[in-house]
Amino acid sequence: MADAEPYEPTIPDLRDPIRAALDSVLDVARPHTDGALASYIPELTRADPEALGAALASVRGSVHESGDSETTFTIQSVSKPFVFALALEQSGLAEVIRHVGVEPSGEPFNAISLEPATGRPLNPLINAGAIVMSSLITGDTAAEKFAIIHAGLNAFAARELDLDESVFESEHATGDRNRALAYLTQSAGTLGSTAEVATGAYFRQCSVSVNARDLAIMAATLANGGRNPISGERVIGEDVARWTTSVMTSCGMYDASGDWLVHVGLPAKSGVGGGIVAMQPEEFGIGTFSPRLDARGNSVRGIVMLRTLSERYGLHMLQHRGAPHSPIAQLERDDRVEGGGDTIARLRGEVFFAGAEEVLTRLAPLVGDGGCLVLDFSNVTRVGDAAAALFRGLPDVAGLGPDGRPRVAVLDPEGVLVGDA
Amino acid sequence: MADAEPYEPTIPDLRDPIRAALDSVLDVARPHTDGALASYIPELTRADPEALGAALASVRGSVHESGDSETTFTIQSVSKPFVFALALEQSGLAEVIRHVGVEPSGEPFNAISLEPATGRPLNPLINAGAIVMSSLITGDTAAEKFAIIHAGLNAFAARELDLDESVFESEHATGDRNRALAYLTQSAGTLGSTAEVATGAYFRQCSVSVNARDLAIMAATLANGGRNPISGERVIGEDVARWTTSVMTSCGMYDASGDWLVHVGLPAKSGVGGGIVAMQPEEFGIGTFSPRLDARGNSVRGIVMLRTLSERYGLHMLQHRGAPHSPIAQLERDDRVEGGGDTIARLRGEVFFAGAEEVLTRLAPLVGDGGCLVLDFSNVTRVGDAAAALFRGLPDVAGLGPDGRPRVAVLDPEGVLVGDA
Amino acid sequence: MADAEPYEPTIPDLRDPIRAALDSVLDVARPHTDGALASYIPELTRADPEALGAALASVRGSVHESGDSETTFTIQSVSKPFVFALALEQSGLAEVIRHVGVEPSGEPFNAISLEPATGRPLNPLINAGAIVMSSLITGDTAAEKFAIIHAGLNAFAARELDLDESVFESEHATGDRNRALAYLTQSAGTLGSTAEVATGAYFRQCSVSVNARDLAIMAATLANGGRNPISGERVIGEDVARWTTSVMTSCGMYDASGDWLVHVGLPAKSGVGGGIVAMQPEEFGIGTFSPRLDARGNSVRGIVMLRTLSERYGLHMLQHRGAPHSPIAQLERDDRVEGGGDTIARLRGEVFFAGAEEVLTRLAPLVGDGGCLVLDFSNVTRVGDAAAALFRGLPDVAGLGPDGRPRVAVLDPEGVLVGDA
Amino acid sequence: MADAEPYEPTIPDLRDPIRAALDSVLDVARPHTDGALASYIPELTRADPEALGAALASVRGSVHESGDSETTFTIQSVSKPFVFALALEQSGLAEVIRHVGVEPSGEPFNAISLEPATGRPLNPLINAGAIVMSSLITGDTAAEKFAIIHAGLNAFAARELDLDESVFESEHATGDRNRALAYLTQSAGTLGSTAEVATGAYFRQCSVSVNARDLAIMAATLANGGRNPISGERVIGEDVARWTTSVMTSCGMYDASGDWLVHVGLPAKSGVGGGIVAMQPEEFGIGTFSPRLDARGNSVRGIVMLRTLSERYGLHMLQHRGAPHSPIAQLERDDRVEGGGDTIARLRGEVFFAGAEEVLTRLAPLVGDGGCLVLDFSNVTRVGDAAAALFRGLPDVAGLGPDGRPRVAVLDPEGVLVGDA
Repeated sequence: MADAEPYEPTIPDLRDPIRAALDSVLDVARPHTDGALASYIPELTRADPEALGAALASVRGSVHESGDSETTFTIQSVSKPFVFALALEQSGLAEVIRHVGVEPSGEPFNAISLEPATGRPLNPLINAGAIVMSSLITGDTAAEKFAIIHAGLNAFAARELDLDESVFESEHATGDRNRALAYLTQSAGTLGSTAEVATGAYFRQCSVSVNARDLAIMAATLANGGRNPISGERVIGEDVARWTTSVMTSCGMYDASGDWLVHVGLPAKSGVGGGIVAMQPEEFGIGTFSPRLDARGNSVRGIVMLRTLSERYGLHMLQHRGAPHSPIAQLERDDRVEGGGDTIARLRGEVFFAGAEEVLTRLAPLVGDGGCLVLDFSNVTRVGDAAAALFRGLPDVAGLGPDGRPRVAVLDPEGVLVGDA
Repeated sequence: MADAEPYEPTIPDLRDPIRAALDSVLDVARPHTDGALASYIPELTRADPEALGAALASVRGSVHESGDSETTFTIQSVSKPFVFALALEQSGLAEVIRHVGVEPSGEPFNAISLEPATGRPLNPLINAGAIVMSSLITGDTAAEKFAIIHAGLNAFAARELDLDESVFESEHATGDRNRALAYLTQSAGTLGSTAEVATGAYFRQCSVSVNARDLAIMAATLANGGRNPISGERVIGEDVARWTTSVMTSCGMYDASGDWLVHVGLPAKSGVGGGIVAMQPEEFGIGTFSPRLDARGNSVRGIVMLRTLSERYGLHMLQHRGAPHSPIAQLERDDRVEGGGDTIARLRGEVFFAGAEEVLTRLAPLVGDGGCLVLDFSNVTRVGDAAAALFRGLPDVAGLGPDGRPRVAVLDPEGVLVGDA
Repeated sequence: MADAEPYEPTIPDLRDPIRAALDSVLDVARPHTDGALASYIPELTRADPEALGAALASVRGSVHESGDSETTFTIQSVSKPFVFALALEQSGLAEVIRHVGVEPSGEPFNAISLEPATGRPLNPLINAGAIVMSSLITGDTAAEKFAIIHAGLNAFAARELDLDESVFESEHATGDRNRALAYLTQSAGTLGSTAEVATGAYFRQCSVSVNARDLAIMAATLANGGRNPISGERVIGEDVARWTTSVMTSCGMYDASGDWLVHVGLPAKSGVGGGIVAMQPEEFGIGTFSPRLDARGNSVRGIVMLRTLSERYGLHMLQHRGAPHSPIAQLERDDRVEGGGDTIARLRGEVFFAGAEEVLTRLAPLVGDGGCLVLDFSNVTRVGDAAAALFRGLPDVAGLGPDGRPRVAVLDPEGVLVGDA
Repeated sequence: MADAEPYEPTIPDLRDPIRAALDSVLDVARPHTDGALASYIPELTRADPEALGAALASVRGSVHESGDSETTFTIQSVSKPFVFALALEQSGLAEVIRHVGVEPSGEPFNAISLEPATGRPLNPLINAGAIVMSSLITGDTAAEKFAIIHAGLNAFAARELDLDESVFESEHATGDRNRALAYLTQSAGTLGSTAEVATGAYFRQCSVSVNARDLAIMAATLANGGRNPISGERVIGEDVARWTTSVMTSCGMYDASGDWLVHVGLPAKSGVGGGIVAMQPEEFGIGTFSPRLDARGNSVRGIVMLRTLSERYGLHMLQHRGAPHSPIAQLERDDRVEGGGDTIARLRGEVFFAGAEEVLTRLAPLVGDGGCLVLDFSNVTRVGDAAAALFRGLPDVAGLGPDGRPRVAVLDPEGVLVGDA
């Protein structure tokens, strides 16, 4: 990809600056009228080729939309990471990776190669791996499996999604290559059901009707560690969200995943219905929609929108966040205590491993027999799990001073050390 | 990889809890005595197979070490991401990716496949791509190129590194496969020098002598956006650090890169000298050393140490950071102003895209004709570039109220909106 | 393959020296007790692992047998070249190669790769290509297609062959990989029927019961240009026999076809039922049977028998046939004719392109005005088509001499110039 | 390839009908002006693009030429099978195949893949394998190796061939990919010299200057079992000729070898100098020359000429030769012997395995106590080695009858049973 033009963001509309940002990337994408509608089934050719929309959902729960963000289309391959997540939630990582790998394939979406030694599809985001994921979902029939998948997708989207019956009928009628992949994995022993049941569930899953707003909320649920920021529902566990995001990072854009990570840095997945889902972990989810596809089957304008957003607003997941400020805002001496007096360390900001490391490295020498070291977390907004465990244990490790008072105390009025679980 | 045992971290030593953590993972790794020394040149077989060390360097500048962290070994393939970074710094991304791809290869380190259409090696972390990177560094001779590479590696390590002459002699004498790769890329038109010059520089680069502490500092420089946290020197730009980290994420562990991202989540690169470099972006770099290698050429105990560290302390780069606290700590009404009074929003913590989005979404409705909205950044520790630009522009966009006073004002005593550049 | 011991053939039994030769190669093969029965379906594990037999059928119609040459087993993949031949006979080469390639695959029998541009399986002797061949045979149902295939195999074998129903049931129940291949080719547009119909016919075809004698006669039919030397029936045309033999030569032993051609030089095809069919074009067909298979799925002892036969008796299809004798046995002057006298050239042996070339080159200068050149084919045993056409045209080209008599005349009492068609 | 038009051969010129046949295929080829001169070195672009020639050399020693059959060009890859043969002659098959495989590669001529387990190039007709063959030829320097190769090529061509020094200089200057292949095989342990020595010999070998007549004679030497039909010199052994022809059959046309065998059936090898060598074993060699190449690097018109020749004159090596005549011309009773009388079997034609089989099968029952069976080989033109051994042993096996006379006697005035060795 060529480098983008330099761009100085402006705020044309104080009322919704995020919507204004989305509007401006739609404007960049609109002139890209190359590409073609998917045509392998007639239903997909009926989409309006000019449709263009995007939505962004923050992990804090607000949604911003622009253009045709509520026009529906079928989810197609965008369903794959979410059904992978549902399979992980149901069966755990160890069981799931007995059935599918997590390596980029260097091949197109419909690649037929399985790992020679294990018979596993290379990852859950190519068709073969996605069909295996559908086969692992509980249920004896395609309808039973799909009922669970459907409920899961609804939870990700925070609303009841429809099934597009006519797309499903067509997928079912023309899905010979997917049937081939299903039989291949069945033969290799990695499919969790019969080939017919697995493809039956998979064709339904691909035919679920969504809009860009739905995709943004689904992605925001992943970005938020598995808890839907709109409904507040925990859809999947934090581990499952992390594993899913990892695989989207490595494999989400098929044989261009490495290029995408270098240039855009927003884990993503596209579908031939014209949708793309993307996210910045811990921050937001995005859904885009524009039905004309490039030769790889990705929405032409969706790619433009995501790349423009990333470049203009520095949204690459590995964008440097600037020099760290010290989490130690202030060290105060409280001399009211006789015989030495306490030291109060006022901490602030977000404290993860490296922040905890700084606090411990700088303050440990102060712990001794001459008073208590008080760690004040009142202005700390977030503490990582491992960091929190380190701090919580400190008073016990430090023990009592000669005056019988603890050498270390922790002040945590908002409970930031308690954790999110 | 099997799931690790649950582990409750403790702090056996208040003086250096991070060193204590490293000690404990060395204890986990020590019993893993499988694997074998690299043997393709005699020099590598002379390493002490029991040597074991690790170091962690924080982006805040402190270094913690454990075991044989100052025992030297040759850097070998660990040099690859750093020379890729030097080539990017010198020539820019557009020029570099004319010569090398950034896709995972799904193949071993010495893979010979080039992209059919372009003749590019698949990525800069396989030998073919690494040799092309060395060839791009300025200089007419191998010695001239190496002089620049050497200076760059020294800057990453914050000290003068030695060249192991006897390893270099052996690499040069036995490097036929690497010569083959060089001639192949020369023939494909992607090499930046003659094959002899390129391999001459590359063999020297692989023979640079380092220790685990060096690797930790080199990685911490990448994690810190390109500025060496020990020396304070800016070695490479932020963009180059981001591109380099992206490629380590996708391609660093060859054909197990996807697996590594799911299970460990610390971008890494190993060398047959026994070293591994790893990092968590924005947080720290790690170097490990243990010379026995597995079948893929990775240090057996190095892998164990990194996986254990990641799992015990939740260091996966995509680990969920917990529910976000609102950056708006407090909204105060200052009624001292006649005719309406100002609203003071006291912000806190780290504010990136989603945090800015929350502030703007919640506070924009308060902007009007009845007083000034004051955004107080005094307790904010870090603001992302795009977020800072949004905030800086607000007073101008909002304009003046009917009383001639600004509708929005910004209070930023520590200059967190000014940025790091 | 290692070089064989030198061997001096002897004739222990004047009554049937060919049978004696077969007996001796069975003796060489018998101690090879390595390998294992095919076990993917239970029926194949019930074979007697010690069974050992061979048969040789000459293109002149005699059959020689040794050992368990009438023990039946299922034909399995040995059916593939014969059904390819039936498809060619039915539809012609141009139509057939729209559906399947003729290149060696460098891959195992169950390879799933199709030609990227055309969607064709690489050749008709791997499973995917064989299933496509079965799909091309006329018939709307699997039973109809199989009825035609069955009749064709019967014609090749010169007897009514049975279908092993229990093997067929098992193949049908476990054939998921073959179903995958069928769906894959259906999806690529190269299958001639639905996947279910094609695999239904294919599973039946593989379950036909044969013995080594049958295979020898089937192969001899190919060696004899398509006419069954036992029944005298023309089963396929000469072109079809040549195309089929060509593909067996290039692709018959999967990824060891080149090795087989160098070392054995008898176009062949093996099946997991334990049978191997082989042939020397123009000379004979061979069938062998021994059910223990090597890792590639070939009968261990069958391979030994064929290699031993080839080496001991110089049966490699490219074995040099010795210095050619001149086809001109004698030039006689017949002076009874007044005014010059005729020249009678007595020809002999087999005359193909190079022999015709010699005759024409040497005798053309003798044609002139002084008498007739008589070409006497009485002792010629065979003349190739192109050579025959050259000779037949000669009298017309040479025209009449000044005495009104032809300058060239042909004497062909046995009609060797008339051809076989 | 599409099917050719039906064609009825005629004999426009009685003086040299073979030349007339060559003239007619040149006429077919001449209008094919597509393709382009090789351009990777400037020397090859200086060829006359309209040059067109062909020659045919019979194993009986005559040569027929048409068009620019004595225009010289560099031999390039056409040298490969001949140097393979020289390596086989020097070192034997067992040693040679430790260094190179004999399987078709399914890849282009400059494929870089080696067999994973052995490090061998896939076959000696791709560049990597050809360079390994050159490296195996005796000699410490490139010049010494080339001296031996040169002498061998001269013996194949029956004249002293020149080296085109300017082509050699260019090959040497631009041969990076070939150097890569050499280093790769050196690294894999399959090269027989250093990479520089091997490529030095190889570049010289490719730069030898030949014409179509030379190629025809070289190929005729292979077709004649290794004895040059022009000079009478035995250049290589029969085994070596057979192995070489086998590999040309499987691998001679790279990834179109299977297609070539089906459609043309004349083992062949092309070179980017515009030459193609082809042959029918036991019959003739052909050389063609026309320098415009197709996308695969084969002479466009050369391909047309060979395909036309094969189709018009039925020259496919597997062309059915017609129904076999019995080698038993006549059975006579000689009653002059008292008490039974002898049986005289007058044999004729060429007698190989199947012919011997017929003779033995039909005549064995006649051997008994009542007189001698005389096998008269006077009119037999050729007997295969194995068949000859069978016949020669018969008198001993049959022993003496009660009258003390042999039961079987052999009459062989021309010594056809003695063999060619």
